[in-house]
Amino acid sequence: MRKFIIVSHRAKADGNFSLDDLCGGAGRMDVLLRCINAAFFISNNIRKNVEVYIVFSGSETMPKTITLVGSELKYLNPDERSTGALIKNALLKDIKESKIKSTPGIYVSRKNFEDVLKECINCQIIYLKEDGVDIRETKLSDNMSFVLGDEKDLTGDEEKILEKYNVKTVSVGPVSLHASHCIVLVQNELDRRE
Amino acid sequence: MRKFIIVSHRAKADGNFSLDDLCGGAGRMDVLLRCINAAFFISNNIRKNVEVYIVFSGSETMPKTITLVGSELKYLNPDERSTGALIKNALLKDIKESKIKSTPGIYVSRKNFEDVLKECINCQIIYLKEDGVDIRETKLSDNMSFVLGDEKDLTGDEEKILEKYNVKTVSVGPVSLHASHCIVLVQNELDRRE
Repeated sequence: MRKFIIVSHRAKADGNFSLDDLCGGAGRMDVLLRCINAAFFISNNIRKNVEVYIVFSGSETMPKTITLVGSELKYLNPDERSTGALIKNALLKDIKESKIKSTPGIYVSRKNFEDVLKECINCQIIYLKEDGVDIRETKLSDNMSFVLGDEKDLTGDEEKILEKYNVKTVSVGPVSLHASHCIVLVQNELDRRE
Repeated sequence: MRKFIIVSHRAKADGNFSLDDLCGGAGRMDVLLRCINAAFFISNNIRKNVEVYIVFSGSETMPKTITLVGSELKYLNPDERSTGALIKNALLKDIKESKIKSTPGIYVSRKNFEDVLKECINCQIIYLKEDGVDIRETKLSDNMSFVLGDEKDLTGDEEKILEKYNVKTVSVGPVSLHASHCIVLVQNELDRRE
């Protein structure tokens, strides 16, 4: 399983945003939607061996995490607007239980960043950051969790939580890139190792 | 200069589409918008050494080509909707001259696929296709033009036009990917060679 954990710092986790303003009023929700696209889509198909966790750490309604499960996903299309609608629906759910299914393959829960990391205890956790070891020089398996920030790096507090786990810091190349582009590069590197 | 030539087969080249339906009624305009994102954006900046040509080959209003010039671009944001608005504005222009500036860095012309290829005569043309040589095994310079289809491969006729030029066929990896993901992988490979 390939897992991507994206920590969002200011996206509107209450679901009260317009699909016409994913970049502005929704708090850079567009960044997260492109990450979902990068993680799941290949030509004419969805990667079944992928899970994406979006941890909303900067909202008043936190903690909240949306989980997308590739093997169960339905109705996911590549464009930002339709994916935004699926995520908005999930965020609007009233979470009383520990985990609610919104649409097939999309779940919402009250998990925080550390709760999500604990679920990844059986796999190597990789922190994607500019000053890490080159991914091409890194031993990779298909049971890894990749952690990255949205349009901002992880905060100092978030990095401290990460440090509790056996985390490797890895870079995807010499230029600082958008989160979604980093995910494309990770997927390609894993595809090449398979 | 890094050039990307994307051949669109059914996007609505007359500009008469809704920004709320970039994936459907606009004829998979969303695919082209993600290609623009992949070609230009790095963290907190736009790549100045990139030009993107979008050749609209499948529309009644063809031939039509939109050119985006990284060194001149203004108002380009990463999200699909705002980029869609810029492209729509360019497509709505009444083209009487050979080339019209729509907004800074965005031009529209009556060029067809072959006209665009002729402009790339001084650089190596690379055709991105699944059965090509692995890009990691390919000699690359920073004066190259990469040709790719949108959500469909080039047609037989388009491939015949390409054959007239000294074209190398190159693949980005073992899995067939979306056009925008291919562009991310090309940019990373070029970044690594610089």
